[in-house]
Amino acid sequence: MRAITVEPGKPSSGLLEDVPEPPREHGPVLVRTLAVGVCGTDVEIVNGGYGWAPPGKTRLVIGHESLGEVLEAPPGSGLEKGDRVVGIVRRPDPVPCASCAQGEWDMCRNGQYTERGIKAIDGYASERYRIEPRYAVVVDRELGERGVLLEPASVVAKAWEQIERIGARTSWKPRSVLVTGAGPIGLLAALLGVERGLEVRVLDRVTEGPKPGLVRDLGATYHASSVQEAGEGVDVVIECTGVGKLIYDAMQIVAPVGLVCLAGVSSGGRTLPVDVQALNREMVLENTVVFGTVNANRRHYQAAAEALARADPRWLARLITRRVPLDRWAEALVRQPADVKPIVTFA
Amino acid sequence: MRAITVEPGKPSSGLLEDVPEPPREHGPVLVRTLAVGVCGTDVEIVNGGYGWAPPGKTRLVIGHESLGEVLEAPPGSGLEKGDRVVGIVRRPDPVPCASCAQGEWDMCRNGQYTERGIKAIDGYASERYRIEPRYAVVVDRELGERGVLLEPASVVAKAWEQIERIGARTSWKPRSVLVTGAGPIGLLAALLGVERGLEVRVLDRVTEGPKPGLVRDLGATYHASSVQEAGEGVDVVIECTGVGKLIYDAMQIVAPVGLVCLAGVSSGGRTLPVDVQALNREMVLENTVVFGTVNANRRHYQAAAEALARADPRWLARLITRRVPLDRWAEALVRQPADVKPIVTFA
Repeated sequence: MRAITVEPGKPSSGLLEDVPEPPREHGPVLVRTLAVGVCGTDVEIVNGGYGWAPPGKTRLVIGHESLGEVLEAPPGSGLEKGDRVVGIVRRPDPVPCASCAQGEWDMCRNGQYTERGIKAIDGYASERYRIEPRYAVVVDRELGERGVLLEPASVVAKAWEQIERIGARTSWKPRSVLVTGAGPIGLLAALLGVERGLEVRVLDRVTEGPKPGLVRDLGATYHASSVQEAGEGVDVVIECTGVGKLIYDAMQIVAPVGLVCLAGVSSGGRTLPVDVQALNREMVLENTVVFGTVNANRRHYQAAAEALARADPRWLARLITRRVPLDRWAEALVRQPADVKPIVTFA
Repeated sequence: MRAITVEPGKPSSGLLEDVPEPPREHGPVLVRTLAVGVCGTDVEIVNGGYGWAPPGKTRLVIGHESLGEVLEAPPGSGLEKGDRVVGIVRRPDPVPCASCAQGEWDMCRNGQYTERGIKAIDGYASERYRIEPRYAVVVDRELGERGVLLEPASVVAKAWEQIERIGARTSWKPRSVLVTGAGPIGLLAALLGVERGLEVRVLDRVTEGPKPGLVRDLGATYHASSVQEAGEGVDVVIECTGVGKLIYDAMQIVAPVGLVCLAGVSSGGRTLPVDVQALNREMVLENTVVFGTVNANRRHYQAAAEALARADPRWLARLITRRVPLDRWAEALVRQPADVKPIVTFA
């Protein structure tokens, strides 16, 4: 079968190549891949900046945002031939930490997890893959191709769950949220905010392309200005860019008792002059919280599946801005101005 | 009666002066003051750097860490003549915000609260004061003078409650805590950590005086080194100094899924070069939380009263390192090297 593979750490080593059928040890459920979404992590892996091959191998099958159809599932697995499924990305270490042992591998405490398509297990960008039933999440057939959005939506569902759980430390309830960055994560974060009945504002740099319209059609407001202008006094900021200046600004403008949820990863290496003591004083006197969130566990995939099922299907379809056939897969990784979520389709 | 008053905003305006008996509008419960503790906020107020007089007045009675004895209490108030009480500091605004309306004035969302001895209401540093029953917390008579530690302990009880409530966002339980700063707040934070069965480490600069012994006698470890050396891999940091460098270091060394609780207030105005993006990346990938906490509501005073009742009375007594009689009150505000908690006694 064909698969997109890379040699992790080696730039431009990505290939569409023939590989053996998926190994039995990946699980008893056999899935035919329909589509994989690509994101910044895939670009980083293909550029040699991230990723680990499985033990004893030099190449990794990429792909962690998936949509597939079950070809074979054993009785009692909860899955049936024809089910549409999305594979969960992260796996606990064979000797799990306290969080992984509870099924909360997204909160792994020792960093020994593995991730399909990223860290030490082959991903989903192959024509077929195998998986264990507990790592396959069924999505509504009605969602169609939009099911490929489940993985990024799971990351957002976790962020919102954490906002609500941390918020519950007091009688506080949020009324407004600023989302920084109108990429797929930011737009899905805005969707889940609107579904919660909040006043949602989205900040991005662009004024052209599909983003402003996508935000407005959610009933949210679109801002191509500054964190200060767009976000003054909001109860929650969901930061999806990883840009230092925006993070610092967000910490300063969030309302008393408010939360800044850091959901964007970027590289470091450049320092900003920060008045740490002034920031501390404000955070203390106003009881504010800043927290990081990454990845998702099974309950977040399930929450995300419900959120996607509630959303307007036409709006969701507009998030998928390019469909690239498998044999031209590399095009999906080259950023286009009008991109929200490019996907690779497996006919 | 005599009271310690200042003209807020005017340095060196502190006086021990005769003032009228406490006004009826402060509440039906009349209390005789036994002692008031002094802290950095009192020093700041007396130096003209903080504090607000009651509306229409120029002078403020200071004192927010109190211990008193009830002289008169109306039937049904839950208080009786002879009860030992501590007055709660903060009050909701007459038109309370959503948090204040729930009795969570420590989480005030509009900043319109008042604070006895600090902001727009006279404090407890007068020979007698009046109070409403809901703002008077009974402390065990057995605690004696140590009851004056209840107010700082309430701030710490809130910090621990918030650590536990935020921690409950996942299956995580802390095992170890680093407390930065071995002042009264830091030592009481360490006490409550030990009471929770945690491994407790305390970092301070001094190697002389009572602090190292107080920490060791709790069963905690004392460190006069760096955040890195003392705290590598701790699950929780309770930051009690407000010093920028320590805050930045704490954010970098806390374990995955861990919490940094900011409980120290300092002034701003000096910037540090901070790699915000690297810090963000670490917080995201490790699911860490940084949050500020201030003040306390009635449930925290009650939790603090229980924590003090459980503590070794001899250890608590050692926190009160100086007793200054009322007529020499100003001496209590001049920092001595061996100070932990100086108090002013009302014979």
